Order: sequence, then structure tokens, then C-alpha cells
Amino acid sequence: MKYCSECAHPVALLVPDGDNRPRYVCAQCDTIHYQNPKLVVGSIPVWEQADQFKVLLCKRAIEPRHGYWTLPAGFMENAETTAEAAVRETEEEAGANIEIGNLFSLLNVAQVHQVHLFYLARLRDLSFAPGIESLDVRLFAEHEIPWEELAFPTIRKTLELFFADRVKIREEGGGYRFHSHDIVRPMRIESDPH
Amino acid sequence: MKYCSECAHPVALLVPDGDNRPRYVCAQCDTIHYQNPKLVVGSIPVWEQADQFKVLLCKRAIEPRHGYWTLPAGFMENAETTAEAAVRETEEEAGANIEIGNLFSLLNVAQVHQVHLFYLARLRDLSFAPGIESLDVRLFAEHEIPWEELAFPTIRKTLELFFADRVKIREEGGGYRFHSHDIVRPMRIESDPH
Repeated sequence: MKYCSECAHPVALLVPDGDNRPRYVCAQCDTIHYQNPKLVVGSIPVWEQADQFKVLLCKRAIEPRHGYWTLPAGFMENAETTAEAAVRETEEEAGANIEIGNLFSLLNVAQVHQVHLFYLARLRDLSFAPGIESLDVRLFAEHEIPWEELAFPTIRKTLELFFADRVKIREEGGGYRFHSHDIVRPMRIESDPH
Repeated sequence: MKYCSECAHPVALLVPDGDNRPRYVCAQCDTIHYQNPKLVVGSIPVWEQADQFKVLLCKRAIEPRHGYWTLPAGFMENAETTAEAAVRETEEEAGANIEIGNLFSLLNVAQVHQVHLFYLARLRDLSFAPGIESLDVRLFAEHEIPWEELAFPTIRKTLELFFADRVKIREEGGGYRFHSHDIVRPMRIESDPH
């Protein structure tokens, strides 16, 4: 941030009176420009039929992580709820029509000022197709998940927690639980997907 | 937003190519200025001893809702986790030292572009004191909660869910559950606190 978005005067980075953090402050109109973390919201769309149990993933057509696989997710917009954001992103990125379930995971990615949320979801039908931000959209059984080609550590962690819950549910009954996790440093995925 | 924060040129509100929502766009440097919901994070600090069970509330010294009671909470900052934000806000607003627990509630307040999170918390001691944004900080037993003088619908809803869970725990055992709720329209609290 270089200029005040209210009056176009150059801003200065300083700690305002009564505050304890540096902020972009305008000396002309006194506006303090706060910067806060962003929410990234998505879903875990599942297709279950007879003995089939598959999760929908999207291959990214955009940077960062072009060509890597992700759960459908994106930045939450103003004037929507977190569940509405998950449904919208799933429609936009995967052309998929879901019935949204409970919140499954909350992941802090403090280094990049983001909080990621993933909702449980059931695909209503198989009429999905890549949106403009996806190269491909496919269903994966657990043993088919491209673990080495996942786009972000929050996707890997959410899928790990999800399949671990599945095991617990098969063995002990009950349902999916809500999980919270901090990504302490971005995991590096070394292998190239091509 | 009136001017580009990167180059000080006036911005226009228009739908960028490949997008479907109006954004503030700079015609000079092509920056798109996205605006996204903010996270408000707080805690439900509990003091439990013998047959005492009390929740800490803060009386707001700032607008909006000056003079009304709230759980300690505030805007999440960059480079912190949601739990760290809850601990920090509890320290800043109530001078209280908490042991943070699980996430208890997520509340969407889509009209004001906010998502509120509240964590379970245990007061480590009774050395709390109002911070500069609080007029008073007090412990309330359930029957003492000033329901008609609460600052925000997300505070009321979180406290209602919290005490309802307490009843369930007393009757059936188990622990607090995670709750998600949408505030469809801001509740009006008609009575004046003074």
C-alpha cells in the first residue's frame, strides 16, 4: 500500500496512538488502513454409490500451483456466508452441484494471512465439468488420491483428516468430527506433477 | 474506496474480465482491489470453582454498542492464528490470562461482511482488569447474564448455545460441541442499558 484509498495522499507505516501494531496511516485524512487475514472456503464433495466412495478434486489452471490438484475452494466474498462461499466455489471451479454438510476443518495459515475452511458435501449428480480456473475435474477413490500432486498443505491435511475419520466411522460408528489445525510452515511438495 | 492504493489514480467500480462481481479497478496500473469478509475472534472465559461457574464479560468503552456487554473479541490480525487472536483479544480487552480450548462457535454475519469465531477458555486466575476498550470486566453466573444489554447478536447466540450445551453435558455427559449459525438479520436490542 502506497497511497490512501480515500484521498490519494501517500501513506506512512506507523503505530497509531492507542494501537500496538504498525498500520498504513494517512497524514492528510487520518484514515487508518487495517489489513486483516482472508478466508478461503471450500468443500469436500463426495460421490457415494454401492461400494463406490470418491472425492472430487480439481486440477488448477491458475497460479499458484498450476497443474496441481485441489479441493474446490476460493476466497470468501462479501455478503455471503461461509457455507454459501463453499457452494459457490464448488460450482465455479468444478461445475458441481453439492448438498452442503457441516464444517469439517479450519486451518490456520498464519504466514500468508489466511484461514481455510472446508465443508462436508455430497454431489447431487455427476454433471461436473472444469470451470475457467480448472484444467480438469475428477473423482478419486482414496487409493487414487494424488498425494504428491496436491496444491496446498491445507488440502493434504483436510484429506488426511477426512479419510482418518472415515476409518473411525467404519470401526466405531458416529459421524465426521470438526477439526482445527495450524499449518506451521508451508509443506514443500518436491515432485513435479508432469 | 476512491483512489488506487498502488498508484493514486481514481478507481472505477466495474466487473473485471473473467469475473462476475463489481470490483474497484485501477485503469492506470490495472490493480484489482478485492474486498473480503473479516474475521472477528474471541473467547468464552470461564471461572469454575466448587459450585461456582461464571463467564467473563466486558462492558464496551467504544462504539458501536458503547456501554453494552460482550465476550472479549476483536478483529483477527495478520500473521496470527485464530486461537492466538482469541488469547490476544482476551488479554487486551479484559486483562485476562486464559487457557484456550476448542473452537465453540462460528457465526456468519453476512450483512456486515464478518465471520465471528468463539473459543472455549478457562481463566487461569482472577487478575483481570478492563483494557482501554472496556469500561468494566465482570464474572457472571448464568442467571446474572445481562441478556438485554448484550452488544451483538453473535454474543447472545454464543452464550445461548454455550449454556444449552452445559445443560446437555450435565444430563447426558460428553463435552461441548462445535456450533455454526447464520445471523440472518441483526437482532435489535430495544432496551437501553442505563
